[in-house]
Amino acid sequence: MEFIDRYQEIVAKAIEKHSFKNKPTELYEPMNYIISHGGKRLRPIMVLMANELFGGNIEKAIKPALAIEFFHNFTLIHDDIMDEAPLRRGKPTIHTLHGINIGILSGDALLIKAYQFFEDLEPELFKECIKIFSETGAVLCEGQQMDVNFETMENVTYDDYIEMITNKTGVLSAASFQIGALIAGAKKEDAELLYNFGKHIGIAFQIMDDYLDVFGNVEQFGKKHAGDIYENKKTVLYLLAMEHANEAEKKELDFWYSKKTENVDKIYSVEKIFRRNKVDEKVLRLIQKHNEIGHDFLKKIDAPEEKKKPFMELANYLLRRNS
Amino acid sequence: MEFIDRYQEIVAKAIEKHSFKNKPTELYEPMNYIISHGGKRLRPIMVLMANELFGGNIEKAIKPALAIEFFHNFTLIHDDIMDEAPLRRGKPTIHTLHGINIGILSGDALLIKAYQFFEDLEPELFKECIKIFSETGAVLCEGQQMDVNFETMENVTYDDYIEMITNKTGVLSAASFQIGALIAGAKKEDAELLYNFGKHIGIAFQIMDDYLDVFGNVEQFGKKHAGDIYENKKTVLYLLAMEHANEAEKKELDFWYSKKTENVDKIYSVEKIFRRNKVDEKVLRLIQKHNEIGHDFLKKIDAPEEKKKPFMELANYLLRRNS
Repeated sequence: MEFIDRYQEIVAKAIEKHSFKNKPTELYEPMNYIISHGGKRLRPIMVLMANELFGGNIEKAIKPALAIEFFHNFTLIHDDIMDEAPLRRGKPTIHTLHGINIGILSGDALLIKAYQFFEDLEPELFKECIKIFSETGAVLCEGQQMDVNFETMENVTYDDYIEMITNKTGVLSAASFQIGALIAGAKKEDAELLYNFGKHIGIAFQIMDDYLDVFGNVEQFGKKHAGDIYENKKTVLYLLAMEHANEAEKKELDFWYSKKTENVDKIYSVEKIFRRNKVDEKVLRLIQKHNEIGHDFLKKIDAPEEKKKPFMELANYLLRRNS
Repeated sequence: MEFIDRYQEIVAKAIEKHSFKNKPTELYEPMNYIISHGGKRLRPIMVLMANELFGGNIEKAIKPALAIEFFHNFTLIHDDIMDEAPLRRGKPTIHTLHGINIGILSGDALLIKAYQFFEDLEPELFKECIKIFSETGAVLCEGQQMDVNFETMENVTYDDYIEMITNKTGVLSAASFQIGALIAGAKKEDAELLYNFGKHIGIAFQIMDDYLDVFGNVEQFGKKHAGDIYENKKTVLYLLAMEHANEAEKKELDFWYSKKTENVDKIYSVEKIFRRNKVDEKVLRLIQKHNEIGHDFLKKIDAPEEKKKPFMELANYLLRRNS
């Protein structure tokens, strides 16, 4: 998509311009390293898109947009330590290169720097944005902890799951849109509508991630097929299967999800239960549902329909990727 | 000191009142655990003292005071992971009880919650305080990294050392005073004078810590005698010794500081060089110097001398402890 490429270039340039030159370099280099290695940088783009929708000045929105990207990368640095992940975006993770201590500390510093990137805003707006930003950060920590808890929890419900992915993924894209809108001077109601659009698109995106793990095209999805099943992750597929399966199938799922094994019979058996219970169709309908809820919020926003098109395109881009 | 006891009670009550009741408990319980185990809570007390000096309302200052305490505890949680410390204030550290992952995440959440505890302030004041708070946080991360660097750096200078302890210790007490003053509506110049008082008292305090490690009364100081020498720490004692020692003594110091050994000959030999070069006297003079610089700033503050007395008492309390 052309407009995404355009935004990506703007963000890339701003990241280069604002790279950290502070000392000690042992602290700041790892921060520059992870930020410069990119990824899709969708969240700062969301800030800029929302800002443009309401006629805002990009000069004013760019540093807050970077703040969101810094925040996102702070969570990645710390998550990678927690997951003992050796690679991120095909490059060695920070704790792999520099040890856990520098990983913890450079993550902390990046979070604090993120806060500082709002400081050019006037006090009223600064406070509004920081409140959203902190609340989002707190909720993200909660979502991360819920995700960890699910691994050993026996009765994870479908509602628990939606709450967890909302916290872990939904609120950050939601907040990115909302902050961008507020910086442009949008009405509070419109900024909130855009927040809800972002939240449901984020939820749909995360559910799609679960779906693609099992039903995606491995080469395009770029991850190990059914990795979530191998790791006994209580994804939406598993939860819907448990809801609709008969007693024998439930027993079989319990059996397979009680052990970690590389046995392909596990994948074969679990997928058969998923398909028999039409979990794939159900999940696609669920994605569609959240997509539609998101679009309903978008429709209600007081802005020209023409200017909303990039938001629909972004949603389609997120939901059609690599499947 | 009576006034400190009084403040400590106020802070303890506020901490209890504002204990985290959020979910998931796996995330918030560790945060309550470390905060409730106290310590001297000098930093929130500094906020309240400064606020009172300028006739502020304690109701307005108490949550920002807790924010400083949360921030301090966030650094403790993460530092304890980095130092692999099993105990803090005589209790098991969070990562010892719950693992590194919960240590990292509950530290992150505590930092974010700290930001949220400023949100009752009006926008102008909120922004002023958050700017100081973020800057302090960034500088603390830098100081922590400098401290780590010193372990393997060959030519640590006396100026490097002062910069490191200023960042690691001085700025947080400085910022606590400044924020308390601003919340009370103090003039910017007065708040800055108090900031500088806090900075130099903090520096003096940290130098005293180095001094007591070697020249303190072990039973009262409560730490292993000469632990810094065992660990080859480049303290101010070591740096002053290296500056004043003759070539033979420098060689001997190099020899002992190049190995980690429990050999008491090391302590004996190093201390002899310290004493021969009158490092003890020089360090006490240095403490006195920073104490005096601090008091000079205090004197210049536009407030009744009578109301400044608690600040002098606090400084004496910090510098006369356990020696």
